Amino acid sequence: MPHHRSDVLDRAISLLDRGGLASLTMRRLGTELEVQPSAIYHHFESKQVLLAAVADEILARGARPRTAVEWPDRLREICVELRQAMLACTDGADVVATVWAFGLGASAPVADLEKVLTDAGAPDELVAVASRTLVHYVFGHAFEEQTARQAVRLGAVERSLESLPDFDLGLDLVIDGLRARLA
Amino acid sequence: MPHHRSDVLDRAISLLDRGGLASLTMRRLGTELEVQPSAIYHHFESKQVLLAAVADEILARGARPRTAVEWPDRLREICVELRQAMLACTDGADVVATVWAFGLGASAPVADLEKVLTDAGAPDELVAVASRTLVHYVFGHAFEEQTARQAVRLGAVERSLESLPDFDLGLDLVIDGLRARLA
Repeated sequence: MPHHRSDVLDRAISLLDRGGLASLTMRRLGTELEVQPSAIYHHFESKQVLLAAVADEILARGARPRTAVEWPDRLREICVELRQAMLACTDGADVVATVWAFGLGASAPVADLEKVLTDAGAPDELVAVASRTLVHYVFGHAFEEQTARQAVRLGAVERSLESLPDFDLGLDLVIDGLRARLA
Repeated sequence: MPHHRSDVLDRAISLLDRGGLASLTMRRLGTELEVQPSAIYHHFESKQVLLAAVADEILARGARPRTAVEWPDRLREICVELRQAMLACTDGADVVATVWAFGLGASAPVADLEKVLTDAGAPDELVAVASRTLVHYVFGHAFEEQTARQAVRLGAVERSLESLPDFDLGLDLVIDGLRARLA
């Protein structure tokens, strides 16, 4: 093979970042790498598998040292990192949320949230509900912010970006709900 | 014009529901209605404007009588209605969340949530934060559920739909956070 798996993945992310999700096709990736699409399928057996690897790489590139000690701060740290990782790549929120929904990847943030909640003594059902509620909030917020910023940048719509809601304040609201349960 | 605006909108929603967001193009809509794309543009000046009308119609079709009295129940009623309206049409969550992010429509649920929170005596900043936090949670949850169900139905992925998180429990968590602020 003329390319390593990591080269194909790098190029896929570069294609995504330049042109968005619609531009990320196996055919176009082959053209970029000057190989037949079959050479891509050698590394990634389907578009879904490629997308899952892209999502996990977006999250890996966004990894930051974790320093928080208390559980509310640890949850915040994970959610902020997830949001920033998704916002760092065009259509990153869409890709990560889609791969998570497919059940094919992007599972690290939920696993990390679950661990913090378990460490904090939350019962199993609350661990499951709270980790997913936090992730759904982060996905929903990041999708709005990214879609709005990209559309304004392309001149596709005119909306005030100042009306984007504050991420941290909404996150605190969810964490307060959790605090009431864990008290 | 051979068609009323409402006919074009009906057909656009039917096209969306049958083939998903990727199938909803001005060209295909013209073919379905047996008119030139220019006839569509007579009613909807752009794809974004059409999409905004589609999102508002999806929400209008999902409208249910509101009977709740207490503010937590009134918030729940609005969020449940929003979720069900989006899930009732293929890619409904994606369309509604995108139109909301564009700032072009789908604003009724947020306005309704804001009114309930104002009635409950929440200060302005909390009204803005909480209404958007609730909507982001609903969007995030509905996007996962709809993407997962559609992908499984198409045979595109295999994931257990039983692992889909309970919507009401997550919603209660956010409302508990709000309750702590309003107490």
